Formats: sequence, structure tokens, C-alpha cells
Amino acid sequence: MAELTHLDADGHARMVDVGGKGETRRTARAGGRITMNAAALHAIRSGDMPKGDVLAAARIAGIMAAKRTADLIPLCHPLALDSVAVNFAFAGDGIDVTAEASLSGRTGVEMEAMTAVSVALLTIYDMAKALDKAMVIGDVRLLEKRGGKSGDWVAPLRDPA
Amino acid sequence: MAELTHLDADGHARMVDVGGKGETRRTARAGGRITMNAAALHAIRSGDMPKGDVLAAARIAGIMAAKRTADLIPLCHPLALDSVAVNFAFAGDGIDVTAEASLSGRTGVEMEAMTAVSVALLTIYDMAKALDKAMVIGDVRLLEKRGGKSGDWVAPLRDPA
Amino acid sequence: MAELTHLDADGHARMVDVGGKGETRRTARAGGRITMNAAALHAIRSGDMPKGDVLAAARIAGIMAAKRTADLIPLCHPLALDSVAVNFAFAGDGIDVTAEASLSGRTGVEMEAMTAVSVALLTIYDMAKALDKAMVIGDVRLLEKRGGKSGDWVAPLRDPA
Amino acid sequence: MAELTHLDADGHARMVDVGGKGETRRTARAGGRITMNAAALHAIRSGDMPKGDVLAAARIAGIMAAKRTADLIPLCHPLALDSVAVNFAFAGDGIDVTAEASLSGRTGVEMEAMTAVSVALLTIYDMAKALDKAMVIGDVRLLEKRGGKSGDWVAPLRDPA
Amino acid sequence: MAELTHLDADGHARMVDVGGKGETRRTARAGGRITMNAAALHAIRSGDMPKGDVLAAARIAGIMAAKRTADLIPLCHPLALDSVAVNFAFAGDGIDVTAEASLSGRTGVEMEAMTAVSVALLTIYDMAKALDKAMVIGDVRLLEKRGGKSGDWVAPLRDPA
Amino acid sequence: MAELTHLDADGHARMVDVGGKGETRRTARAGGRITMNAAALHAIRSGDMPKGDVLAAARIAGIMAAKRTADLIPLCHPLALDSVAVNFAFAGDGIDVTAEASLSGRTGVEMEAMTAVSVALLTIYDMAKALDKAMVIGDVRLLEKRGGKSGDWVAPLRDPA
Repeated sequence: MAELTHLDADGHARMVDVGGKGETRRTARAGGRITMNAAALHAIRSGDMPKGDVLAAARIAGIMAAKRTADLIPLCHPLALDSVAVNFAFAGDGIDVTAEASLSGRTGVEMEAMTAVSVALLTIYDMAKALDKAMVIGDVRLLEKRGGKSGDWVAPLRDPA
Repeated sequence: MAELTHLDADGHARMVDVGGKGETRRTARAGGRITMNAAALHAIRSGDMPKGDVLAAARIAGIMAAKRTADLIPLCHPLALDSVAVNFAFAGDGIDVTAEASLSGRTGVEMEAMTAVSVALLTIYDMAKALDKAMVIGDVRLLEKRGGKSGDWVAPLRDPA
Repeated sequence: MAELTHLDADGHARMVDVGGKGETRRTARAGGRITMNAAALHAIRSGDMPKGDVLAAARIAGIMAAKRTADLIPLCHPLALDSVAVNFAFAGDGIDVTAEASLSGRTGVEMEAMTAVSVALLTIYDMAKALDKAMVIGDVRLLEKRGGKSGDWVAPLRDPA
Repeated sequence: MAELTHLDADGHARMVDVGGKGETRRTARAGGRITMNAAALHAIRSGDMPKGDVLAAARIAGIMAAKRTADLIPLCHPLALDSVAVNFAFAGDGIDVTAEASLSGRTGVEMEAMTAVSVALLTIYDMAKALDKAMVIGDVRLLEKRGGKSGDWVAPLRDPA
Repeated sequence: MAELTHLDADGHARMVDVGGKGETRRTARAGGRITMNAAALHAIRSGDMPKGDVLAAARIAGIMAAKRTADLIPLCHPLALDSVAVNFAFAGDGIDVTAEASLSGRTGVEMEAMTAVSVALLTIYDMAKALDKAMVIGDVRLLEKRGGKSGDWVAPLRDPA
Repeated sequence: MAELTHLDADGHARMVDVGGKGETRRTARAGGRITMNAAALHAIRSGDMPKGDVLAAARIAGIMAAKRTADLIPLCHPLALDSVAVNFAFAGDGIDVTAEASLSGRTGVEMEAMTAVSVALLTIYDMAKALDKAMVIGDVRLLEKRGGKSGDWVAPLRDPA
């Protein structure tokens, strides 16, 4: 029956044993979005033209956070990531963030991609909050994963919000 | 005119100088939400009854993350937090998370509350992803802040999504 | 002759080179104990019934500390742990803690298990110290290790203290 | 009635609010001990004569761990320690470790001293375990604390073990 | 007589007690330089024009490292920095880096500025090493400090190297 | 054509994908130097005779920093280092530091050796700065690397400075 793998038979938290799993290539891609008022969006956009420092800072923060996922999420395995990339796109009243992580290892990198997205979004929030405290972070989710025993998975299509 | 305070006159990132600000009591409260399928929600709910380990783990992860905010968000000041609390409520097809942080210091604790919420939500995602990979984290936002030069702020009411 | 492997020929600290060792499955189990007065023990026990938060927090802290062993112990190798579990048992005037760690790698995980036990015990101390400052942590030791060139090892039986 | 201050009214973990406490000078001293076989003890002792690297490494590890206490113990407050010192004494079949920490702040530094002792002891274990896997860490406890609302406290005298 | 303040009377390392010092405004500025071949310098320069990612990454890395100084340098006090800024200038066959840190506290921020410079330089090295492995980091030094009991200090003028 | 591998086609920072690289034995050796006045040099030298605590602390700091390289340098891969060693030599008006790191993995360990050297030098600076604020850290560079697709590399001979 369906169960939470991070809990043992008594319902206690544990880090699941991945020792019996094979070392395979695994990738994951996650996305998220932050919406904000026009003043904040304009400031980031125009700041981005000459120097790119807001999004550059958010990109670096996301990449560094991916490497610290196991330090943040209690039951995540420490992983020697092969790669991490974080990208941004201005869309409507906000910014879309995607992150992709890969590994040659025994467990998936979904949490690393999710963590990169979350921290990149928090960094944008931090750098723009003087202009808009009411920004909202949303739609943080796994977009796809590839490799591993459970195989490939792609997020179902959704109607526009 | 409106500007991004974390960028200097040349548009470069910097940690804003808070040395001239007074040490005052500051609090912030943030919220967020994760939605999931019925199987995952049921597993967490029923797991919660006797042992509470999923939400207990998420609570601890959120509190610890609040303390590491300045390690994660590039331009956040390191702060000696007075308190952090993280709470959960089952609501509809998901779980609502709120976090509250306080400080006697020179700068606000909005990012600490936002980070606690984000990492608590990521921890729930991690522990339930074997049951539902399509969970979505959303509505992560500041609910209110009190204290400091810019004064109190409460998030505007919103129509239900 | 017997020597401290973490010191080089001049007696200086170094991280021993494990590059020539094979990647094998390695496990270690460590234990420890905290004794306390009846009021503290009762509070943890009864707190444990409905919510489990003291031991749940100690469990999470122990697991997270295992992952940070190389950050804490100067000459430990950074390891990609396969699993960590921490367990508790009420016994007499205190609580017994055991931790088990495993790895597919080039060096043993004794320190990861020892660190998990120590930090879980410190967490219990922290959460109960308002009730008893005179708690004592003791009997922290390796119980067994398996795998690796030096082979299996089981702690000798001891007379009850 | 006696209660665990780190749990809220519902029994959930939280970081206690110290915002209302005054900034006072606080100190704490903790102790612990590791026992080992004669070969390990001799190696550390003689290693200590010319170079001191085992105890020097353990001292540094203990001091650095004190600074990371809030990173390790979930509900500890991040503190700007004024000082930390770690000392060692050869005694019988083992080594006694004491640590002293001080702070001008709103909460005590007991956990910082306890963490320094624990990690210093773990470091000795790590560096000597090639000679003796059966070493035992024990008697880790608070020796005294001074300052703060609850006032001074000194550990009760004990009969020799 | 002149002595190393980080060693106690027995020559053992300790974190010096700053509890008796007053909380004053303190600033420090440090500098350093990396020299490289024309290809690497040109790639960074031209990369810097449209996007600035190499120096943006180095700036973020330097700022974040300043906040982690006490985690890296064994006897540094953990500090709640008021501000950090890192700047770059192309000069001759290399890039000059300066960092400035400030604090309202009990001890100086020289090491925070020095650490920011060092890690910013290491980040440039990392990002350009595919083009030039023979880059050299040098001239890392304190440029000035202000505040604190020992008062202001400005680095002596030097002849050009 | 020559390009900065840490930037993607759009000039954005990314962690390069090493998933396609083979796991081979890789080593790197880096060096650096700190110069100081006679009083500081004498204090470290004489302190070094009986106890070695300044250099012992710098050695431990360098080794621990090597393990945290990926935490400090934004685009470095997290690596499970096989070994790290840091050594010191008094030479002229200063101290030479070398660090050597090795790995069985998919990417080189140049940055780990460079980081170990830099943090060891910063630690010496910190511990001696009460005697000489004008110390200068310099000549931090890669001395050699072995293994990996790009093969062996040895730093070119240089004229004495």
C-alpha cells in the first residue's frame, strides 16, 4: 500500500537506505514563479539590462542552495551533483524560474532542483521587497525527472491559472 | 524614486548598511501552502496522529532554516533571532504553513519567516513525493511585519484563489 | 607499531588518503545514554505520547548531524551516506540512543554514527535542561562496524555499570 | 508546574522567545571524558609532547563547534559568543575535557559549552580509533553556569565513579 | 611584551574574550589582486560587458564568505555584520578586488573583509582556470580599519611592485 | 575558441556538467605565502616550538576549508575528497604554505587545494594580526595538477620575486 518512505514501520523519520540502488544518471527539472507589482518588476528588468545583478545573485543563490539541499532538508541524502543550472524568464506580472540538476548516483535529484528554485525565488523576494512586500511565490513544483528505478516522469499539463 | 536597495549606484549587489538603524523589536509572519493528492494527504494526516513525524520534521527543518537564512540568501544580514515558530493546518487539498520570527535588532526578519516557510514546505514535499510527485508549493508570501523604521505592514486581503 | 593514522611522520594532522581503498558497503552502529531526574524524564515521556516532539527533534538533529560529520570533525572524509537512522528507548533513569549509518564507499562511517548519537543526546539535553541541569550524557561508544579492509568489529560485552 | 519550555501549549517544538530578556553577561562551563586503552593513550600523550596535534585538533574542533551550536541543535538561539576555550587533562585511563563559553546576551551558553566538549571528544575518538575502537565518551555534563534570570548554578558534588 | 593574543598563557589556542569591550562602530577595508594571461582577462572583461556574470558571481561569493568568516577561521568571533561590499577594477594584467565590512559590535571586522577578498579572488580563479591555470593571487592585505579600542589604522604606502 | 566554461551560451553562470567524465584519480597541489614583521614571525616561530598551536590551527582550518570548497565557491562541484594535507615552511620574512588534495572522481581538485592554502593563510593572519596588521598574503597559485582529461600540469618556473 502507498506509504511515506521516509518513515519506518513505527512512523519515525529515517534517511532511506539507497545502498542497494545502482549508480545511474539522474536528472530533474523544477519550476516556480514570483509575481510582483509593476514598479518592482520594472526595477528588476531595467537593472537587468546593464548589469544583471538581481537575477545574477538569484542564480548564484539557487545554485549554491542546490549543493546544500541535504543540509536543509532533514532526510535528503548528501549528493555529489554533476551539474546545476538556474534560469529566469520575465512572463506577465512576474518572473518564472526553472532549475535543472543532474547526478550520477543512487538517488534522484528532485529536491536539489526544487531547493534551487525556492532559494532563487526567495533571493528575488529579498532584493525587491523594498518595492513590493506583497510579492507572492507560487507554482513551485517538479517539472520532470529522468533516470532511476522509478523511471521518467513528466508533470501533467495544466490549464493556465 | 523607487529603487532596489540591495544594488549600489552602479547596479552592483551589496549588503545594505544597517549600522545607523536602531535596535528595535521586529517580528514577521509568513505563510505558504502545499497541495497534494488524497493519498499523500491521507498518509501525512494519519502518520500525524500517533507520531507526527512528517510535520515534526518539517517544523524542525523550517526552524533550522530560519537560522541559516543569511547563509542562503546572499544579501541578508546575519541575525541573532529571538524566536522562531512554525505551524501547520490541514486545509482542503493541502497543508497551510505559517512561520513567525522575531528579533531585537537593526533589520527586519521577513526573510527568516519566508525561508522557514519555504524549507518546511520543501521538507513536506520530500517526505511525501513517493506518493505524489505533482504536489505544488504556492502562496508563499509575507503576512505581516511589525517594528522597524518602515513600521507595521499587513498583507492585503485577497479573494480566495 | 601502533600509531595514530591521522598524524603524518612529523606528527602533523592530515586527512588520510583513502584513494587506494575499494568502494565497499560499510555500516556502523553507535550508542549513548542520557540520565536525568524523574521530572524531566516524565515530561519527555508524556510529551512523547501525543506528539513526540522532543524525541522527534532529537532524531532529526541526529540525522542532520550525521550528514555534517565532516564539517565538524577536522580529519573526517566527506561521505555520501546511504542511510542514517536514530532510535530511542526509555530505560531506567534515562534514555538510550542508538544510531546506524551506512555507505557504499572508501572509508568507514563510525564517526557519522557517533556524531548522530552525540547530537541527538545534546538535543535532548537542550530541550529538557529547564527541568534538570544536572543531566549526564555517557556511554557514547561504537557498538559495531561492518565492512572495509579492517573487517567487522563488535563492541566487547561489558558488566552493567 | 514543571514543563519543557521548548514545546508550546500543543506540545510542538519552537524556539523560545528571548526578546524580553535582558542582555547580561553569561558564562557556562561543561566537562566530559574519554577513556581508552593504554596504547591509544600513550600515542596521544607522546604525540602531544613535540607537536600537540591530536589535542590541538580537538581544541580547534571544539571551539569551532561551539560557534555552530545553533546550526546543530534545532532550538538553540544563534549567539554572538564573546569567548570559547577548551582544555584537556590526562587523568587515569583517559582524557578530561572542559569547555568554557561566555556571552553578553539574552540567553545562556550552556549548549555552546556542552557542544564544544562533545565535538572535542569526538575528534579525539576519530584520531585514536585506529588504536582502540572501544573508547567510551562519558560524563558529559554542565559544570556551572553564571548570569541570566535563573542565576548561578553549580553541578552537585558526586562520588567518584 | 608583544604576544599572540589568540594563545593563552600555555600557548594553547582560544577565542579571546571580548565581553569587556564596548559596542562601537567598526569598519575594515581589505584588498587583493589576481593576475592572469591576456586571454583570460579578455574573456572576463568581455563577459562582463553584457552580463557581468563572472564578477557578479565573485561579488556574491565574497559577500557570502564574509558572513561565514567565523565558520572558516577557527578563532574568529561570530559577528552580526552591518554591511559588506565587494568591488572590482581591471588594472594592468589583472583585477583588483576590495572589500569593506562594518559592524556595531565588540570586535573588529578585519577578517571579514580579508575573507571576502580571498573568496572573491578564488571565485575568479575558478571561473577562469580553463583559460589560464597559472593565475596568481596576491597582495591580499588589510587597507584600513576604523573604530575599536586600538583605534584607526591605515596601511603604509608602498612602492609599486 | 577560448571561453569561460562556467558561463553558458548566454553568459550566465552555471555549474558545468561533469556527468560524462570518467572517475579517475586526480590530485592538485597549491601554494601561497604570508610575509610579516620580525616580531610576528618570531612569536609564531617560538610559539611553534613547544605547542605548535598557530600552525596547528592554520593546518586544521585549511583542511576543513578544503572540505567546504563547494560551499564557498559558487560553481565548484561538491566532492568526496580522498585526502587533504597542509604544510608550512618558514622562509625569509614569512611562511610558505602548501596544500595537496586528491580525489577519485569526475572533476579536478585544484580549487580544494587553493582554498586550503587561502584559509590557512587567513588563519595565520588572524592569529598574528595583533602584532602586525600590515602582513601581506601573496603568491597563491596552483603548483601542479595530475589526472583528468586535460592531463598533468606543472606551474612554470619563475624568477625569484
